Amino acid sequence: MVTSRVKEILSWYGSDNPGTLANLARLLNHGTLKGTGRMVILPVDQGFEHGPARSFAVNSAGYDPRYHMELAISSGCNAYAAPLGSLEAAAREFAGEIPLILKVNNHDVLQDEKDPLPAQTSSVEDALRLGCAAIGFTIYPGSAHRVEMYQQIREEALAAKEAGLAVVIWSYPRGSSLSKEGETAVDVCGYAAQIAAQLGAHIIKVKLPSAHVEQAEAKKVYDKEKIPIGTLTERVRHIVQCAFAGRRIVIFSGGAAVDDEKVFQEATAIRDGGGFGSIIGRNSFQRKHDKAVEFLKKIMAIYAA
Amino acid sequence: MVTSRVKEILSWYGSDNPGTLANLARLLNHGTLKGTGRMVILPVDQGFEHGPARSFAVNSAGYDPRYHMELAISSGCNAYAAPLGSLEAAAREFAGEIPLILKVNNHDVLQDEKDPLPAQTSSVEDALRLGCAAIGFTIYPGSAHRVEMYQQIREEALAAKEAGLAVVIWSYPRGSSLSKEGETAVDVCGYAAQIAAQLGAHIIKVKLPSAHVEQAEAKKVYDKEKIPIGTLTERVRHIVQCAFAGRRIVIFSGGAAVDDEKVFQEATAIRDGGGFGSIIGRNSFQRKHDKAVEFLKKIMAIYAA
Amino acid sequence: MVTSRVKEILSWYGSDNPGTLANLARLLNHGTLKGTGRMVILPVDQGFEHGPARSFAVNSAGYDPRYHMELAISSGCNAYAAPLGSLEAAAREFAGEIPLILKVNNHDVLQDEKDPLPAQTSSVEDALRLGCAAIGFTIYPGSAHRVEMYQQIREEALAAKEAGLAVVIWSYPRGSSLSKEGETAVDVCGYAAQIAAQLGAHIIKVKLPSAHVEQAEAKKVYDKEKIPIGTLTERVRHIVQCAFAGRRIVIFSGGAAVDDEKVFQEATAIRDGGGFGSIIGRNSFQRKHDKAVEFLKKIMAIYAA
Amino acid sequence: MVTSRVKEILSWYGSDNPGTLANLARLLNHGTLKGTGRMVILPVDQGFEHGPARSFAVNSAGYDPRYHMELAISSGCNAYAAPLGSLEAAAREFAGEIPLILKVNNHDVLQDEKDPLPAQTSSVEDALRLGCAAIGFTIYPGSAHRVEMYQQIREEALAAKEAGLAVVIWSYPRGSSLSKEGETAVDVCGYAAQIAAQLGAHIIKVKLPSAHVEQAEAKKVYDKEKIPIGTLTERVRHIVQCAFAGRRIVIFSGGAAVDDEKVFQEATAIRDGGGFGSIIGRNSFQRKHDKAVEFLKKIMAIYAA
Amino acid sequence: MVTSRVKEILSWYGSDNPGTLANLARLLNHGTLKGTGRMVILPVDQGFEHGPARSFAVNSAGYDPRYHMELAISSGCNAYAAPLGSLEAAAREFAGEIPLILKVNNHDVLQDEKDPLPAQTSSVEDALRLGCAAIGFTIYPGSAHRVEMYQQIREEALAAKEAGLAVVIWSYPRGSSLSKEGETAVDVCGYAAQIAAQLGAHIIKVKLPSAHVEQAEAKKVYDKEKIPIGTLTERVRHIVQCAFAGRRIVIFSGGAAVDDEKVFQEATAIRDGGGFGSIIGRNSFQRKHDKAVEFLKKIMAIYAA
Repeated sequence: MVTSRVKEILSWYGSDNPGTLANLARLLNHGTLKGTGRMVILPVDQGFEHGPARSFAVNSAGYDPRYHMELAISSGCNAYAAPLGSLEAAAREFAGEIPLILKVNNHDVLQDEKDPLPAQTSSVEDALRLGCAAIGFTIYPGSAHRVEMYQQIREEALAAKEAGLAVVIWSYPRGSSLSKEGETAVDVCGYAAQIAAQLGAHIIKVKLPSAHVEQAEAKKVYDKEKIPIGTLTERVRHIVQCAFAGRRIVIFSGGAAVDDEKVFQEATAIRDGGGFGSIIGRNSFQRKHDKAVEFLKKIMAIYAA
Repeated sequence: MVTSRVKEILSWYGSDNPGTLANLARLLNHGTLKGTGRMVILPVDQGFEHGPARSFAVNSAGYDPRYHMELAISSGCNAYAAPLGSLEAAAREFAGEIPLILKVNNHDVLQDEKDPLPAQTSSVEDALRLGCAAIGFTIYPGSAHRVEMYQQIREEALAAKEAGLAVVIWSYPRGSSLSKEGETAVDVCGYAAQIAAQLGAHIIKVKLPSAHVEQAEAKKVYDKEKIPIGTLTERVRHIVQCAFAGRRIVIFSGGAAVDDEKVFQEATAIRDGGGFGSIIGRNSFQRKHDKAVEFLKKIMAIYAA
Repeated sequence: MVTSRVKEILSWYGSDNPGTLANLARLLNHGTLKGTGRMVILPVDQGFEHGPARSFAVNSAGYDPRYHMELAISSGCNAYAAPLGSLEAAAREFAGEIPLILKVNNHDVLQDEKDPLPAQTSSVEDALRLGCAAIGFTIYPGSAHRVEMYQQIREEALAAKEAGLAVVIWSYPRGSSLSKEGETAVDVCGYAAQIAAQLGAHIIKVKLPSAHVEQAEAKKVYDKEKIPIGTLTERVRHIVQCAFAGRRIVIFSGGAAVDDEKVFQEATAIRDGGGFGSIIGRNSFQRKHDKAVEFLKKIMAIYAA
Repeated sequence: MVTSRVKEILSWYGSDNPGTLANLARLLNHGTLKGTGRMVILPVDQGFEHGPARSFAVNSAGYDPRYHMELAISSGCNAYAAPLGSLEAAAREFAGEIPLILKVNNHDVLQDEKDPLPAQTSSVEDALRLGCAAIGFTIYPGSAHRVEMYQQIREEALAAKEAGLAVVIWSYPRGSSLSKEGETAVDVCGYAAQIAAQLGAHIIKVKLPSAHVEQAEAKKVYDKEKIPIGTLTERVRHIVQCAFAGRRIVIFSGGAAVDDEKVFQEATAIRDGGGFGSIIGRNSFQRKHDKAVEFLKKIMAIYAA
Repeated sequence: MVTSRVKEILSWYGSDNPGTLANLARLLNHGTLKGTGRMVILPVDQGFEHGPARSFAVNSAGYDPRYHMELAISSGCNAYAAPLGSLEAAAREFAGEIPLILKVNNHDVLQDEKDPLPAQTSSVEDALRLGCAAIGFTIYPGSAHRVEMYQQIREEALAAKEAGLAVVIWSYPRGSSLSKEGETAVDVCGYAAQIAAQLGAHIIKVKLPSAHVEQAEAKKVYDKEKIPIGTLTERVRHIVQCAFAGRRIVIFSGGAAVDDEKVFQEATAIRDGGGFGSIIGRNSFQRKHDKAVEFLKKIMAIYAA
C-alpha cells in the first residue's frame, strides 16, 4: 500500500501520466526507506567518469557491475543508477529486484576542459528494453555548452515522460565563468536546482552547498533578505526551497568524503533541512561489502529517524 | 460573447486556423480586461533567467510555482506564462482557470556572454499536454546567434499553428553589435517588433523604448521624416506601427521599476499610444499577494479606462 | 489562353511537374504584362532586411502589409513577394487576386558581418497554406556560409517542386572574399546567375551589373574573348546568357535609385538585353500610392513595348 | 547483348542489387565504346565550379546546357555528367538518349579557402526524377572538412544503391596539409582512389598522377618496394591497383591541357596502364562542336584499339 | 553444438536479444578456435587508415580485398573485419564462409590532426545487406571530438542491437591531452576498455598496454593499491578486469611488430592474462599467403593451448 507521504509526494507531479507516477512510486517504495518519502540511491558511473582503477581498485569486486547492483539490493537502497554497459551486464540477473536508473549521458576525464559537455551514451529506448524506472541526465550549468545539454534533456525528458519513465537530473555547476569555489556556492547550487526543476526533472540531484555566494547580483539579495545559510541544515532547506518550494524530490551527493561521521552529519543535515535523501557512490562501493552495507544502513537509519 | 473589439483583433489573423483563433480569443477573453482588446499577462521565468533567490527571496511564497498561477488568476490577468517545470507543477491544480503560455526557450546567467542564445527547454508537445493556449519564445535580435533562434521559432511556430496554438514572441535586442543603450533604442525596438511580426508572431512582447536612436542609417530617416519619438506615448505608437500598422498585438514589459507611479504612467502611455497591454513580472510577484493584486488591478484599471 | 511566348518559356522547364508549370504560368499570366513573357514583381522584405522605419516612414501607409499587396494588385504587377508575417497579414483579404511568393529566408542588419547567412524564416508548408505560387530564397555567393545556403535551398527547392511550387532565387554576391565593387561586377553577377540556375531556380533575381570584372581568372577570359560588357544592355544580355543561354527567367533589381529616368533607362536596357523584367521594391512603395502606380505602369509600358 | 568484358566488370560488384548493375551496364553499354569496358564521359560542371564566362565564352554555344548533352550524344560518349540545373534544362528533350550522372555536390570559387567543402546541391530523389543512371559526388581527401564529405556520401551512396543507381566518386586530394604538388602526387592519388573505393564507389574518377611522392611514410615504401612509377603508364597501373587491384572502374581527368597530342598520349597511357577511360570536360566543350566530336572520337579510338 | 565455455560467455550478455547472441555465437564458433572462447580476427582497414601502397605494396596480392577475406578463411580466423568497399568487393564470393564485421567508421592520414575524428563511412543497413555478424566502430578517448564519437556509437549500437548484430568497439586513446606514451599507458588503456564496455560493446579491442601510468590521479591509486602491472600478462589481466571483471570479450592488437617471436610472446601473455585473443592485421597480410597462414596458425595454437 502506498503511504500517505508517498501519496503526497506523487500529488506534486500533477502533469505526469500514470506510467511515470507508477515509476516514481517504484523508486519511493523500494528498500529500507520505502514509504518514508526519503531515498538513498547507489550510483556507479565512476568507471566512466574517473576511470576504472581509480574507482574500483580499492575494492576490486567492484570491477564487476553485478557487484554494485547486488550491493544496492542487499543494502536496501531505493534504486541503482549506472551507465548503459553496467546495466546491460546485470539487468537480467537481478531483473525485478531493484528499480534501475539508466544514466543516459556521461563524461570522461581524458581531455582537459574548462567547459565540459557530457556525451549522450544511451537513450530512452535503452532504458525501456532494460526495464528501468527512470533515466538520469547530467547538466553542467555554467558550462559554455549548457545550451546543448538543456536541449538534449528537453528531448530525452519528453520521450521519457511519454514512455512513462521518471526523469532524474544531476545538476552540477561547472564551467569557465565559475570559480572552483563557485561550483558548490549556495546561490549557484540553488540556481542549479531551479534549472533542473524547470527542465522538468522529477528528481534533482545536487551537491551539498557551501556558505559561499558566487554571483554578485545574488549576493546582494542573500544579504538584503538575510537568507539563512549559516548551517548546512539551513543551506539544504534553501536548496530544497529553490526547487519549487520543496515540491520536487531533491537529493544530495557528498563526493569522496574521508570521514564516516562527516557523512552521517551531512545526512542528518539533509534530513533536518527537508532534503529527500542521498546519492552515495564512492563512499559505499569503495569499501568492503559488509562495511558498505553497514554504512548505507546507518545512513538510512538517519533518514528513517 | 465575443466583443466587436476582439472580433476586430481576430480579423487581423486571417491566415490562422480556427484553433489558433480560438486560443487567441481565450487570451483576450479572460480576466479583468476580457473583451477590451487589452491584456495584462503575468510571466514568471525569472527563476530560470536570474536565479531563484534573486527572484523569490523577497516574497518567498513565490518559490512555489502554484503561487504565481494563483496570483495570475486572482488578480484577473489574461494569462500566465512560465517555463516547463513551473507549468508542470501547477497546471492540474488550476486546470481551466486561466490561459497558459508555455515559455519554450530560456536563458540563464551562469555564463558571461556577449551574444546570448537561449536553450529550447520545452516544446509544442509539452504545451499541448499541459493545456496551454500559446507558446512563448524569446529572440535576441542583435545576437550573433540570432539566425539559429529565428530558425528555431520557424519550426516551433509552424508546429504551434498546425496544433491550433497561438505564438507569443519576446523580442529583446541584445548582442555584441549593440550598445547597452541600443538595446532599448526606439529604432532597434521597432525593428525587433517588425522581426517578430515577420516571423509569424500573434503576440509580440518588447521593452519600452527610449528616445535613443542606435543605427546611423535609421537615424537619418528618423530625423528626415521627423518621426515623433519625444514622448513615451509617441514611441509606443511608433512601435505598434512597426508591427504591421497596429494589426498585431504588441505588449510591453517594464523591467524592475522601483516606483509604482512610474509603472502606472508607463501603462497610461502604452494605452494612449495604442499598445495592447503589459507583461508584468517582478514588479508584481516580488511584493506581497494582496499588494500585488492591488497593483495589478490598478494597471488593469488604467487599460480599461 | 496561354500565349505562344509563355508556352515557349514553359517549354524550357521540361523537368518540372505540371503543378510547378501551372504556377509558373500563373506568375507569367497575371497583371499588365500577362502573356508577354516579361514580369514586374513587387517585393517587400525591407521591413526585415533594413528595419521598418527606414523602409516605411517615408510613406507610412506601407507599415501595413496589406498596402503592398494591394499596390501590387492595383498597379498590375505579376506577383507580390514578402516574408511570412506580411503574407499572413494580407493573404486572406486578397486571396486569389495576385500570385504570391513567400520569401522563406531573411536577413537583418542588427549584426555587423562580413559573411552573412540569412535565417530560414518560413517553409514550403507555409507557402502552401498561404496559397503561394512560389517560394523565394536568397543566396549570397561569396559568403563563407554559402555552402549552408546552397544546402538549404537544395532541400527547400526539392520540397517546393514536389508540391508543385515554383522556385525563385535571389542571388546576391557578398562576402569577405569580394570587394564592395565586386558585388555587382559583371563576372560575379553572371556567376551568381549561373549558380542559381544550377541550384534549380525557375526564376533568378540578380542585381544590375557594372562593367567591373572582379576575378583575375575571369578577367583574362573577358579580355581574350572580347565579351561585350560596355553598355548596360550588353551586360544584361551577358547575364541572361549566363543563365542557360536565356532559358531561365532572369529579372533584375535596381536598389534605391534616386532618379526615375535612370530606372526607366535601366528597364529599357533590361528589355533590350533580353532580360525578363524587374523587381521593384523601395522605388515603388516609398512614394505615394498613385505615384507608385504611375511609376510601375511606366516601367511595364517599357517592357510591353 | 552484354559482352563478356562487361559481364566480367559487372561481376566485380557482387554486393549490388540488379537495379544498380543494370545502371552500371547502361553506362558501359552506351556510345562508341559500348561493350569494351572502356568509358569516355563528358562532364560539365565548370559553370558552377569556375564560373560561366571562364567556361563557355570561348565556345558560347556551351552556355546552353542542351549543347553539352547533345555533344555527349553525338560524339558517342558513354555518359553525360552535370549539376542539377543543367540536367533539368535538357533531360526531357534528350530523354533516353544517353545515360546521365547527376553531380549532387558542387563547389564555387567565390571564396578563398585552403580546406574546401563542396555544397550538396541535389539528391538521389532528383536523380530519380530526372532519369539518371548514377549520382556523382566529389570528395577532397586532405581537406579539414573531409569527414563531413565522407559522411555525406555515406548517406547518398546508401540511398543511391537502394534506389538502383550507380555511384561515381570524384576523388580530388586538396587541403591545408597537402602541398600543391601533393594534390597529384602518385601516393596521394592512389590513396584517393582507395578511399573512394572503400566509400563504396562503383566508378572512381581521379586526376592523372605525377611521379612526386608526397607523404614521408609512403615514400619509404615506394622506395623500398621499388613500386614502378617512372612512366605515366606505370602510374596509371598503380592507381588502378590501388582501387581493389583493378576491380573498380577508375577513370582519369586531365584538366585543361593545351596540346591535343598530349591528351592522346595520356589516353594511350591510361589504356596501356589498365585505366578504364577518361572524363573530358573543358578540352572538349571549349572548342567548336565538330572539332570536339572529332577530338572525342580520336580519344575513343585510342581506347577501342 | 555450443561448448560450455561459449555458453558461459554468452551468459554475460543477458540484455541482448537472441539475434545478437546468435551472431556473437557465430563469431565464437567459427575457425580454428571455435568453441574455445578465444578469437583471432583479421582486420584490414589499413588501405583507408594508412593508404594502399603503405599497406599492400609489400605483398601486392593484398590490393585485392578478396585476398584478405580468403586469407581469413583459409587461416582459420574467427572473423574478418573491413570497411564498406572491401566487404562489398568480396562478400558475395565468400558468402557464408566466415563471419564479417563491417567497420562503419574510418580515418585517413591526409590531414595533420591532434584530435582525430573518424568519418562514419557505412551503417547498420550496409552491415545487414552484406550479411555481417557485427559492426565495428573506432573511438578515440582523449580526442577533443570524443563526445561526437560516443554519440555516434550510441545510435549505431542501438540500431545494431535492434537488428540482432553484435557491436565491436576499437578503443584507441589519442588526442591533444595525452602524451604519445600515454596512448598505450596501462591506466589509459584500462580506461579505454571501460568506456567501450559502458558504451555497450560486446567485443572490445584495445592496444597492448605499457607499464607507463599517464594520469596523475590514477598514478596515486596504482601505487597505493599496488596494482600488478609489471609484466605484460599482469597488464592484460588488469585491462580485462577493467572491462567488467572479464565479462566482456577483450581482444588486443599489436601494431606492426617486426619480430614474430615477440608476437607469439604477446599472444602467450594475452592468453595467460585472460585476454580473449588477438586482432592481427599488418603482421599477417604483409607477408606471403603461406607464411601468413603459418603465422596465424601458430598464434591460434598458442590460444588453443
